[in-house]
Amino acid sequence: MADKYIDIETLKYLLYDVHQLEEVLDADRFVDHDKESLELFIDAVKDFSDRELFPFIKEMDDHPAYYKDGEIIVHEQVGVMMKKGGEMGLISGTFDYDAGGLQLPMMAYTASAFIQDAANNHLPGYAGLTIGSAELIVHFGNKELNDKYVPKMLSGEWGGTMCLTEPQAGSSLSDVVTKAIPTDSEYYKISGQKIFISGGDHQYADNFVHLVLARIEGAPAGTKGISLFVVPKKRFDDKDDLVSNDVTTVADFQKLGQKGYCTTHLGFGDTNDCHGWLVGEAHQGLKYMFMMMNGARIAVGRGAAAIATAAYQASLQYAKERPQGRKLTSTGKKNPEQGQTLIINHPDVRRMLMQQKVVAEGSLSLVLLASKYFDLKETLQDKVEIEKYSLLLELIIPMVKTYPSEMGAEAVSNGLQVLGGYGFCTDFILQQYYRDIRIFPIYEGTTGIQSQDLLGRKLLMENGKALQLLTEEVMKTIQDASKYDDIRSYANRLGEKLQLTQKVIGSLVAYAKKGDFERFLSDATPFMEFFSTITMSWIWLEIAVNAKKSIISGSKNHSEDFYESKIHAMRFYFKYELPKTTGLAEILFDNEVLTIATEKEFLG
Amino acid sequence: MADKYIDIETLKYLLYDVHQLEEVLDADRFVDHDKESLELFIDAVKDFSDRELFPFIKEMDDHPAYYKDGEIIVHEQVGVMMKKGGEMGLISGTFDYDAGGLQLPMMAYTASAFIQDAANNHLPGYAGLTIGSAELIVHFGNKELNDKYVPKMLSGEWGGTMCLTEPQAGSSLSDVVTKAIPTDSEYYKISGQKIFISGGDHQYADNFVHLVLARIEGAPAGTKGISLFVVPKKRFDDKDDLVSNDVTTVADFQKLGQKGYCTTHLGFGDTNDCHGWLVGEAHQGLKYMFMMMNGARIAVGRGAAAIATAAYQASLQYAKERPQGRKLTSTGKKNPEQGQTLIINHPDVRRMLMQQKVVAEGSLSLVLLASKYFDLKETLQDKVEIEKYSLLLELIIPMVKTYPSEMGAEAVSNGLQVLGGYGFCTDFILQQYYRDIRIFPIYEGTTGIQSQDLLGRKLLMENGKALQLLTEEVMKTIQDASKYDDIRSYANRLGEKLQLTQKVIGSLVAYAKKGDFERFLSDATPFMEFFSTITMSWIWLEIAVNAKKSIISGSKNHSEDFYESKIHAMRFYFKYELPKTTGLAEILFDNEVLTIATEKEFLG
Repeated sequence: MADKYIDIETLKYLLYDVHQLEEVLDADRFVDHDKESLELFIDAVKDFSDRELFPFIKEMDDHPAYYKDGEIIVHEQVGVMMKKGGEMGLISGTFDYDAGGLQLPMMAYTASAFIQDAANNHLPGYAGLTIGSAELIVHFGNKELNDKYVPKMLSGEWGGTMCLTEPQAGSSLSDVVTKAIPTDSEYYKISGQKIFISGGDHQYADNFVHLVLARIEGAPAGTKGISLFVVPKKRFDDKDDLVSNDVTTVADFQKLGQKGYCTTHLGFGDTNDCHGWLVGEAHQGLKYMFMMMNGARIAVGRGAAAIATAAYQASLQYAKERPQGRKLTSTGKKNPEQGQTLIINHPDVRRMLMQQKVVAEGSLSLVLLASKYFDLKETLQDKVEIEKYSLLLELIIPMVKTYPSEMGAEAVSNGLQVLGGYGFCTDFILQQYYRDIRIFPIYEGTTGIQSQDLLGRKLLMENGKALQLLTEEVMKTIQDASKYDDIRSYANRLGEKLQLTQKVIGSLVAYAKKGDFERFLSDATPFMEFFSTITMSWIWLEIAVNAKKSIISGSKNHSEDFYESKIHAMRFYFKYELPKTTGLAEILFDNEVLTIATEKEFLG
Repeated sequence: MADKYIDIETLKYLLYDVHQLEEVLDADRFVDHDKESLELFIDAVKDFSDRELFPFIKEMDDHPAYYKDGEIIVHEQVGVMMKKGGEMGLISGTFDYDAGGLQLPMMAYTASAFIQDAANNHLPGYAGLTIGSAELIVHFGNKELNDKYVPKMLSGEWGGTMCLTEPQAGSSLSDVVTKAIPTDSEYYKISGQKIFISGGDHQYADNFVHLVLARIEGAPAGTKGISLFVVPKKRFDDKDDLVSNDVTTVADFQKLGQKGYCTTHLGFGDTNDCHGWLVGEAHQGLKYMFMMMNGARIAVGRGAAAIATAAYQASLQYAKERPQGRKLTSTGKKNPEQGQTLIINHPDVRRMLMQQKVVAEGSLSLVLLASKYFDLKETLQDKVEIEKYSLLLELIIPMVKTYPSEMGAEAVSNGLQVLGGYGFCTDFILQQYYRDIRIFPIYEGTTGIQSQDLLGRKLLMENGKALQLLTEEVMKTIQDASKYDDIRSYANRLGEKLQLTQKVIGSLVAYAKKGDFERFLSDATPFMEFFSTITMSWIWLEIAVNAKKSIISGSKNHSEDFYESKIHAMRFYFKYELPKTTGLAEILFDNEVLTIATEKEFLG
């Protein structure tokens, strides 16, 4: 078992130095917080994670959550996560004081949740989905719903879930068929099936509050007819006692990874006695859900970045302890009389470790940037500024969800490879991280869906204004970087990639202009890889510029070696990752059509 | 559970039409075989695999092989594989008649083993390692060893293993410390520990014949002092009864995948009573082992190609049956009144399926080509020809091992993604293939080791003659392809890539010429990806040319749609895979040094 799951110094460096947490603290909302108080909070979360999360990660994999007699049985740390975590504010953190929250900036919350995810990715989701469902009630529900449900959720006594997916519809939410029939009372009668419900049931919560997408009888077809309901597992009767609300745990899903994080199949209204309360207005359910989706997608990117980070730490420890083989001499031979070298000294091992490092740290930086945009758009007063950060957030969110997930999975695979045969064995944690992270490119909208969102919606929205804003941010970094002799050449390379991006987008948008939307979006996934790889080179250039300035100014926040290691990582990213975009651009410029279905079936 | 694990038509097409099995049948060795008899054999193997292998794949994953009281307990199909498989000639297939074999061409054997691997990759390894160890005895052992061990091995009564790896040495075979002490008798006394021994013990064999690398007392350090021994689990006593030979099953390794294929830790000579018999001459062990390594590496590539094939069939079936979402209309919207479409009609799903297809079928074609080179070098009479095919085989072997393994893992991941959330669930087979295939980039020399072999040894051997021969083969295909209007442009692209390859190699070899071997090989793995991706475009162009000729000649071996689907796959490969090499070339030309250890430790 690895000893370490995170490099806390890098987390704090990215949070305070690179992304300047203090810049968001000026807002009235955060008047009670300062850097010191937030650091205390983060350190407390690290301590909690060391004691209550990390020691149980293998155990939760060995003993998956399971279904028995209509219930889901989970590991006892789920109870600890919800109760102790609830007491520490890990659920209520970002909520208003009014709702019982701590009014933490998203940046600080993201940092704290990242630590938990890295320590044990099977646990924080229970809190995370409770947060998400409570947020929907807080933002769109009436006072009664708020009073009745939110306090118990934020304290961790009750769990919360998001119920979107149905067996026949999958990601196609316009095909949701769960029914809501109005009654003479204030509630609706709900009936239907929901699958893939994370944290949908367990023995450590007295009740569950399901946020359910359903169609009110007679509603229009498609996404326009979907409404959002609060459907508790147990409802209050006339005497304010909790009684069954006809929500059944039908089954669970056994999975490749995240085995301690239960995934359930829920049935609503089997005996026609399931009450649901409308959240906000009828037919607005999908809109509400998607207004909260940015937070969910930041959380997915954060979780993937965290697993990649833990895997990196585990591989690094192994590589620093394992002697094997010898360095090549100048004759190209090895000298068997020499002692073995540590495997970290083999260039190919070092290359894999560096790839893990640039993906893990770069992903964390991207996730923190998204959190910063989130805080700024929520707290700034100036309309132009609010629009700016809203648009920047919208544009990067599909990448925030996708890049850490896709590249994190690749990084963990490299991490497994570092261990050779041992990487494949269950005595080592890498094979678990390899399984755990594989859900992230699927969660909350697959990579294919995110890619269509990026290319088909986000790039074009407001006449391309978001892209223009992002380009301006990148240009600022390029100008900044150009001041330093040993960084300038990287800045120039990024500048060239920006021009290439313009050309690629131009050639793709031409299809949309001709009305050929299927072709426009058919290579959306390679475009995602292209665009996010370039975006990440900006993220790394930004880190390198910051490190360079710190060295020059003689900053003592970190050691000079620490700063230099960040510049070295940027160089690695530019040498080994960024060149991929040349080939991806070739793919995107190629006008051959090979993946759009025709009468001839080429698959078989 | 998927219904199908292989497209047998494509296998036969590649075997007979593209790689012309009949061309190797001219040899005296194969005088008793013709296309029809071999097809009967292959069909029998398919039938055997349908009945005895494929139905047990999930079961063997659910109930892994395990260690109990000094023994390994495996699934009962292991017994069936060895006994029934032995009877069918699945172990003895390629051996001489003299040894009790069928003198099958390697091409036919590879095809038959590919079917078994695709049906259930947990089983054929038991036979495969028995083959490998019997081959070592046949090629290098004396008559006594041959008479005593080989017949029982080829019949499947006794298992065979290869014992190379030791705990302290891993892949670094020069650090093997297992001891062999000469005695007054013909045997040596063996003592040591071997790990990662596949098929090292189970309840369905009466005995095991371990081929063990060990160091005779006083032997020189390094690889030069290693000898090869036959060390049976049970030896014959004076009365020709089998008695214990002091070989202990110390433990097993529980793994991410291939759970039904046991991996063991063996101890030799715990009570100083382990007899081993020298194979061939002293100190030649590693040489012998490596002379047989080509077969082992073809087998690894074949296994990975087979898993990728089975995964492709499973994803394809799902995509053809699962309705979800709608096609985009010309306004870029979806019409919810329309019924859902099958997911195979979504371009992004089709892109992932096509990627699976080109990797799976291309890998199979590469593996068959290697088998053909093997057959030709073994059976041709002309020295120049023998050298030609020996060199071609040596050059492609690291790619044969690596490309199917690395890209197969990526293809299976795409296959899992096709199923969305279900891909992550144990109810579907994709997650198992995802785990099973992950060992292949590690088995029999990791990707890093193969890459150093390719760049550091194979490209330069005989003054680059192997590369020159391969280039000539590629040029022939380019000339051939250039005759057809609709294929010519692809041939031209491959021609450009050949020139790029020359430049890349030139720039890397410059480091070796300066004596900087560490730098020469530090980017060997990106070079492997570069070189194998280009080699695979040749493999696909060859297939496309063959299909084109068949269409023009009106061949009725397969339907015109079948041939067109192969040309379509070639186009897909050239559009979506080959462009990667542009970015890889950028990496390889870049003279920045970032992965060679320096005094500054940039990792943390």
